[in-house]
Amino acid sequence: MYKFVLICFFSLISTLINAQEMTSPNGQLSMTFKLGANGTPTYQLSYKKKPVIKSSTLGIETVDVASFTTSFEILKVEKNTVDENWNPVMGEQKTIRNNYNELLVKLIQKDQKNRTMFIRFRLFNDGLGFRYEFPKQENLKYFTIKEENTEFNLAGDHKTFWIPGDYDSNEYAYTTSKLSEIPGLMKKATIDIHAQQPIKNLAIQTPSMMKTDDGLYINIHEASLINYPAMALNVDATNFKLSSHLCPDPMGNKGYMQTDTHTPWRTIVVSDKATEILASKLILNLNDPTAYTDVSWIKPVKYIGVWWEYFVAGKSTWAYSNENNVKMGDDFSKLAPSGKHGATTQNVKKYVDFAAANGFDAVLVEGWNVGWEDWFGNWKEDVFDFVTPYPDFDVKELHRYAASKGVKIMMHHETSGSATNYERRLDTAFKFMADNGYNAVKTGYVGKIIPRGEHHDSQWMVNHYINVAKTAAKYKIMVNSHEAVRPTGLNRTYPNWIAQESARGTEFEAMGGLAPEHTTILPFTRLMGGPMDYTPGILQTELSYYGTGSSQKVNTTLVKQLAYYVTMYSPLQMAADMPENYTRYADAFQFIKDVAIDWDDTYILEAEPGDYITIARKAKNKNEWFVGGITDENSRTANITFNYLPKGKKYEATIYADGKDASWNKNAQSYTVRKVSITSTSKLKQVLGAGGGVAISIKESDAKSLNGK
Amino acid sequence: MYKFVLICFFSLISTLINAQEMTSPNGQLSMTFKLGANGTPTYQLSYKKKPVIKSSTLGIETVDVASFTTSFEILKVEKNTVDENWNPVMGEQKTIRNNYNELLVKLIQKDQKNRTMFIRFRLFNDGLGFRYEFPKQENLKYFTIKEENTEFNLAGDHKTFWIPGDYDSNEYAYTTSKLSEIPGLMKKATIDIHAQQPIKNLAIQTPSMMKTDDGLYINIHEASLINYPAMALNVDATNFKLSSHLCPDPMGNKGYMQTDTHTPWRTIVVSDKATEILASKLILNLNDPTAYTDVSWIKPVKYIGVWWEYFVAGKSTWAYSNENNVKMGDDFSKLAPSGKHGATTQNVKKYVDFAAANGFDAVLVEGWNVGWEDWFGNWKEDVFDFVTPYPDFDVKELHRYAASKGVKIMMHHETSGSATNYERRLDTAFKFMADNGYNAVKTGYVGKIIPRGEHHDSQWMVNHYINVAKTAAKYKIMVNSHEAVRPTGLNRTYPNWIAQESARGTEFEAMGGLAPEHTTILPFTRLMGGPMDYTPGILQTELSYYGTGSSQKVNTTLVKQLAYYVTMYSPLQMAADMPENYTRYADAFQFIKDVAIDWDDTYILEAEPGDYITIARKAKNKNEWFVGGITDENSRTANITFNYLPKGKKYEATIYADGKDASWNKNAQSYTVRKVSITSTSKLKQVLGAGGGVAISIKESDAKSLNGK
Repeated sequence: MYKFVLICFFSLISTLINAQEMTSPNGQLSMTFKLGANGTPTYQLSYKKKPVIKSSTLGIETVDVASFTTSFEILKVEKNTVDENWNPVMGEQKTIRNNYNELLVKLIQKDQKNRTMFIRFRLFNDGLGFRYEFPKQENLKYFTIKEENTEFNLAGDHKTFWIPGDYDSNEYAYTTSKLSEIPGLMKKATIDIHAQQPIKNLAIQTPSMMKTDDGLYINIHEASLINYPAMALNVDATNFKLSSHLCPDPMGNKGYMQTDTHTPWRTIVVSDKATEILASKLILNLNDPTAYTDVSWIKPVKYIGVWWEYFVAGKSTWAYSNENNVKMGDDFSKLAPSGKHGATTQNVKKYVDFAAANGFDAVLVEGWNVGWEDWFGNWKEDVFDFVTPYPDFDVKELHRYAASKGVKIMMHHETSGSATNYERRLDTAFKFMADNGYNAVKTGYVGKIIPRGEHHDSQWMVNHYINVAKTAAKYKIMVNSHEAVRPTGLNRTYPNWIAQESARGTEFEAMGGLAPEHTTILPFTRLMGGPMDYTPGILQTELSYYGTGSSQKVNTTLVKQLAYYVTMYSPLQMAADMPENYTRYADAFQFIKDVAIDWDDTYILEAEPGDYITIARKAKNKNEWFVGGITDENSRTANITFNYLPKGKKYEATIYADGKDASWNKNAQSYTVRKVSITSTSKLKQVLGAGGGVAISIKESDAKSLNGK
Repeated sequence: MYKFVLICFFSLISTLINAQEMTSPNGQLSMTFKLGANGTPTYQLSYKKKPVIKSSTLGIETVDVASFTTSFEILKVEKNTVDENWNPVMGEQKTIRNNYNELLVKLIQKDQKNRTMFIRFRLFNDGLGFRYEFPKQENLKYFTIKEENTEFNLAGDHKTFWIPGDYDSNEYAYTTSKLSEIPGLMKKATIDIHAQQPIKNLAIQTPSMMKTDDGLYINIHEASLINYPAMALNVDATNFKLSSHLCPDPMGNKGYMQTDTHTPWRTIVVSDKATEILASKLILNLNDPTAYTDVSWIKPVKYIGVWWEYFVAGKSTWAYSNENNVKMGDDFSKLAPSGKHGATTQNVKKYVDFAAANGFDAVLVEGWNVGWEDWFGNWKEDVFDFVTPYPDFDVKELHRYAASKGVKIMMHHETSGSATNYERRLDTAFKFMADNGYNAVKTGYVGKIIPRGEHHDSQWMVNHYINVAKTAAKYKIMVNSHEAVRPTGLNRTYPNWIAQESARGTEFEAMGGLAPEHTTILPFTRLMGGPMDYTPGILQTELSYYGTGSSQKVNTTLVKQLAYYVTMYSPLQMAADMPENYTRYADAFQFIKDVAIDWDDTYILEAEPGDYITIARKAKNKNEWFVGGITDENSRTANITFNYLPKGKKYEATIYADGKDASWNKNAQSYTVRKVSITSTSKLKQVLGAGGGVAISIKESDAKSLNGK
């Protein structure tokens, strides 16, 4: 990894000044730390002199010792500046600049035996990160958190893109409203989802995206969530004040802490340009560098899978039989097969053939292992053992067959939420994978968590996901977790935790459909934390096609599904539709085959949350560029520039566009493919249908084709 | 294993008769099952026509489906008789007779879609066992238990030997009182113990020992506790009615059930002879035969250990340093050693030398692994990793050294109650043991349980202990669990779960002392469930001896400590005192060296709970017999017979007796050793000091020594 480090140290000691100020490297952001009259820490943040966060308190309430909320004095203040570049293992950019000014405020509670708590602020050009630190000290060793009292006191009644606060699910549809409107809309927004646990008081989830009346974009989230519960935001809709709400454990406690320790970073990304929000690398910058010395085995993965057929065609099932009361240890070969099992050796071989013929790295197979007959909703601990295939799934033969074609089978570990069962069997499960040629696993947590009373977002589970990623790394296995706590940039530290779901993804297109605007919001919310396994690529958007009586439809045009490969960043991308559909739309499918999933650089061309996004990216180590543009339920004209292309050369752009009559709810599968010659100065005004998109692949024109034009 | 099976089947169908009667094979016990007017199942039990259990209801209340309490009808009744012999892997007898009449009552709830629940009764000559069974059925798959409603409606205000109901600890001192006196005594009885969780309503623990005014002995417990919480007994002190009280999980739920399943057996051992209570094998008989095909590696273990020195002499500590805030992953070699660490290579070698010189199988070493600096009381998950030794403990060298002398090092896995951490590391920990020559582990659960909100006695933990035993078996490792749920005869099914603590043991002699009667009660209570690692053998009973200012004393005579090897059955027995003390009392120590720990047969000669116990046993596959007798705080004369010796031969008995002036609180270390010649017709009246004992080893006299006498 290349590393260009420029670190300057400025350190000054100030024991008596209770207000500390700091500006971002470019001077646009400024913040103040101040101790209130009773010794309560506060901070405020402004952008180009506009208030972003008005004076807001900081502190942590505790269960078992005096709280870290008041009676603080400043013991010492340290300042520091960092400007360095680093290279992610995989990412949207080959090189990421990490440039911030730092303010470390060392606080002391003299009336609590001189206990100390530090607050570390890092002010970037694109926002602020801060965290609480508890150094090793004589009179503070262990404490239990009752609640974190971090406030985000906003300057107005901002437009907010939000989903309800929930301890167990991120799979909500977004509501867009003023902060003041949230109370009236919460009940409607709290739609039914499996294993949900909506927060009782008024709260929304992070990443929380807001826009002020005067055009400022504000995103609140967290970075490096380790050994701490996830944070939701209580909403004071009268005073426009958000405040931290941690996920509790079964006892109602919100964090077990041992000094030396610290909280995750609380992040506020700010800009007056929506494109800069999407371009921000603040959250990644606040995460630790990778914990692994060897990352050579961590690679981008483009995959297909035995998956969508379970959702749409009704032609196959995860379960092998129609029995509905099975136990681990049962002899599944004695069950009568239903004849509809999807993960058969024969069916998987067809997928392997297709993957090999079309350059995919892997084939995901769900439903391969015994236990799917009654896997969900029973809060059962021993649902799966992760090593026993159904009688019609031949692990060894498929390993041999796939390997002979240069394709990997992707493992699936659905836990049904039973994390204790998974941890108990983790080494055995990963060893089984290593022994049978698997190098990536899709994990799932569909269901109420075991340990019972823990939540998907509680401290124990946060540690569980990381334990899974770290243990997987020992076996050189990549992890793609579904239904886990939403990401906070930990893919920097644990790059084998290659992607996550943690949001309402494509599967919901088969369960009522997603709003056309959904994917214009996700990059401003969920994806701020890290790559999403959104599973795009559904070309057969009309599900009535399957003749199963379904009138469902995927609420996008066909082309928008292509655009997602660029607008939804992930180094692990699925082509989620069935091979037969890709064969039928071979010219459109070509984009999915061509598109890169790891990048040298990224250019956010246009963006407005809830409305549209247009992004261009350069493939990693290749002179190929890809553009994706999407729009919400409104048709629009994307203004696509190409000034990121090297000057003075000609390029061939293949443009996948919505048909003239295409929209998300009519003629969605109408599209055109055209090739045009462009240069860095070209400009393209491309019409996108309602709920539509555009996808462009760009290659250098070779001498021969140039001659021909 | 020899197996003499005599099984007779009597099956009769009875759909209309709502009362079913059954007698024990010898006719002394009789029971009736009856459905009440509202279809509530009830049972009653009598012994020699005296009521033991008056009409008592049966049933299970549920959270999520209709309860299994009323509206039952009898669908079918099946009767059966079994008379067979089986041989335990280790035990008090080489051969155990399993002889019972069985009544299987198949109940149906017609108003609940014909759901069925079976109740299976087994009536032995020494008591009753019954359990609830839920067969696989169409309209019942999963259910959650709110409470089990099993009543034990007693016939009078019996004298009871009890400890307070507690979800997390069995380490209470016993109170002896009438049932009616329990309410007034509960507060005093609920002494402080680490990590206790006394049950809020009035409840006592099982095994619960009672004696009626007319001399009937009744013991209530359970057998084969698997996948179910442990049962305590609610006390209705007015009506002398006990009822089941299961240990809850964090949600307050008391059991997650999936048909086909059943509860543990509820056991009532009854006799008019106290000796027959101790001789009962009813609980073992109700457990399943061993789950293992190869048991050749499971062996009795007589061991010493680096242990008592931590409690009494203040000369050494588990922890390596005086630091009190450490984390897993710290470099412990950077800590300043306190100089008092007990588990040093050098110190352990001394123990190994002593073990080898005196025929012990193993040396337990506690405090060998990093993490003891702040291991207790912080509800911390990652306390120990079970594989990292302190810098002064050389695993490889000790393995080599011990192996060269034919001695095993015994592993110690203290979990601090963090079962999730232990499960996560279990395979690694056992592999480490296998790689380093360990074949037995002492586990510990000192602390509040993690998963947080679970208890030592809740269903999740019950399954945890069994998971540990079964996983250990894969590595041919024997398990001796401390602070686990009290045993229920599972050492039959999982014979490598060789012993448990689960009661107030010898360690409390160094923490305030045990009542002299304590060990005359334990065999009637705690040991009814299985072998106890009581850790006897403290010969230096006056702890002031160590010159550390302690005035503590072990509340027994020296000889009583010897007698425990016979009165406290376990195939794993520690000689808990330090080698130097055994060297000082070499003639008394000889008994500990000689005594067997696995037996061909056992003879309960005299017994009265709370007063005295005298037991003789024949060594497994050896013509050696050992007698142990103990008394409470009163001196008494034991009447020891020898009619279990083969007739017509002469035997040499070595009698270890209290000195004339010896009592538990004065001259406790005064003793005599004498040899006498006996035959099967000999009788011995042996005076035991207050809180004293007697120990006898018996060998066939050889021709030469006979000539000499």
